[in-house]
Amino acid sequence: MAVFTTVSEAELTAWLSDYSLGQLLELQGIASGIENTNYFVTTGNGRFVLTLFEKLTADELPFYLNLMAHLARHGIPCPNPMANRHNQFLGTLKGKPACIVSRLNGKSVDTPSIEQCASMGAILAHMHIAGQSFSQLMPNPRGTVWRAMAAQTVRPFLDHEHATLLDNEILLHADNDFSHLPQGVIHADLFRDNVLLEKNRVCGLIDFYFACSDALLYDVAITVNDWCLNHKDGGLNTELAQAFLRAYHAVRPLEACEQTAWQQMLRLAALRFWLSRLFDMHLPRNGELVNPRNPEHFRRILQNHIGTTQPVWL
Amino acid sequence: MAVFTTVSEAELTAWLSDYSLGQLLELQGIASGIENTNYFVTTGNGRFVLTLFEKLTADELPFYLNLMAHLARHGIPCPNPMANRHNQFLGTLKGKPACIVSRLNGKSVDTPSIEQCASMGAILAHMHIAGQSFSQLMPNPRGTVWRAMAAQTVRPFLDHEHATLLDNEILLHADNDFSHLPQGVIHADLFRDNVLLEKNRVCGLIDFYFACSDALLYDVAITVNDWCLNHKDGGLNTELAQAFLRAYHAVRPLEACEQTAWQQMLRLAALRFWLSRLFDMHLPRNGELVNPRNPEHFRRILQNHIGTTQPVWL
Repeated sequence: MAVFTTVSEAELTAWLSDYSLGQLLELQGIASGIENTNYFVTTGNGRFVLTLFEKLTADELPFYLNLMAHLARHGIPCPNPMANRHNQFLGTLKGKPACIVSRLNGKSVDTPSIEQCASMGAILAHMHIAGQSFSQLMPNPRGTVWRAMAAQTVRPFLDHEHATLLDNEILLHADNDFSHLPQGVIHADLFRDNVLLEKNRVCGLIDFYFACSDALLYDVAITVNDWCLNHKDGGLNTELAQAFLRAYHAVRPLEACEQTAWQQMLRLAALRFWLSRLFDMHLPRNGELVNPRNPEHFRRILQNHIGTTQPVWL
Repeated sequence: MAVFTTVSEAELTAWLSDYSLGQLLELQGIASGIENTNYFVTTGNGRFVLTLFEKLTADELPFYLNLMAHLARHGIPCPNPMANRHNQFLGTLKGKPACIVSRLNGKSVDTPSIEQCASMGAILAHMHIAGQSFSQLMPNPRGTVWRAMAAQTVRPFLDHEHATLLDNEILLHADNDFSHLPQGVIHADLFRDNVLLEKNRVCGLIDFYFACSDALLYDVAITVNDWCLNHKDGGLNTELAQAFLRAYHAVRPLEACEQTAWQQMLRLAALRFWLSRLFDMHLPRNGELVNPRNPEHFRRILQNHIGTTQPVWL
């Protein structure tokens, strides 16, 4: 259940009087999502999504809202924040920071096809290019410092083999410097459930609240690790990964330094989600849903990347 | 024919490499429109309209493009200009200033219903409110100075009765000062063919290239003069005009000073289009389409407003 804060039609109508979106026609809670309260909202002017932020603060939000507005301005299909009469994206509703964004068409897919992976690769590259002219910076909140902290916290819960794996990977990446790779704004969480498609075409990227400034290749690795997998062994599916990478490369040509870093980037991306899932499983935050996703999935992906000297490339 | 400048798929593909809109899938000239070259463009990211400006210059265009972006940012359904890699809306294609904007759904209607007039009234009020936070100014290029010039130019072509009518109206409005009325950005050309609807709902306002800063009530008068007419006599249709005005009033309450000015505003709005149509008929610009719209239509509207002491109000 993702409606943590209930909003009535009367409350929303009053709130919308500060916007130019027309009369409220329909309000419907959205069940998915675990961080914020979301509603589908239909008004005289169209279809929108209302979000009440349960954790992010009014200080943190402008980066994400401005980023979405910037990408939408460049034609990237992402939620476009609507400004109120004071020309602000961010308002307050029921005492929470809140915004209303355009609603996108399309649905997530569970098992992406070759064409869908290619569409995803192309749009990711377009997003990376469009992000180059976005001027705000946001250090990756799941970077080196977080990794070290999270590893230390979850290590006691691991058996010897997994603890050793974790130690080795943390050590490997502690000295890794990817700052020579092309940098920019990355989504950092483009899993299949954050992407909407119509047939073979990606028509929506959503949930930008992990977006940050980092190596673009890291975003590629995170996305490929989820989209282009052989689910039986946790290895990359050659056809899917090649379709993804080639479509990406056709829009933003990948550089030699990126090929060199590719295997370690895949490992880093797998480590980051193994860690956060371990964290969520062993240290659930109070009052949170107790349905954490399985960390093992990412340990297998990580293990598979370690065992592969030449991962799929172009 | 509205494709004054031909753009090939190869030329557009090259031009689009500066944008993040995805691969060009379809390109189709648009026959309507008399000032610019327009194409429907479908890319991997969606449906767009490409415009090459045949008369407006790169100096004049930022006002209009920034205005559309501002209104779209507020949820007003209008074409949303796409920025290129340099974060600019305006580019150059075939030596002409050019832009690409989002394509809206819907179709114009010839004979608006009561519900459609109400929808139009509401959206116009929302547009006026959203425009209040737009900071750029554009004096009305069809204001007092233009009126005097145009009247002097077309007067020799009129018979005695119409010349007298023209003289009287010019004289009346020369001394009229509407600066005490609520001011803001107005579209100034929201005729039925510049509005797209789906069923009873306005879902698109297009063609902002006459937009300027003026009395908001002037925009209401221009729109009502086209949308809420008894076509048999050129008078306002009470039901349509009331539906329009009441829906507008529900969003932006009309003020007493606006009621006082209403009849003169309707006359001014009719005069402006009578004049420009006389001008286009008697002084066609070189190489322009020679299918000018009938000025008589607006003279009848004007005459009717003069004969009405209490025009339809709320």
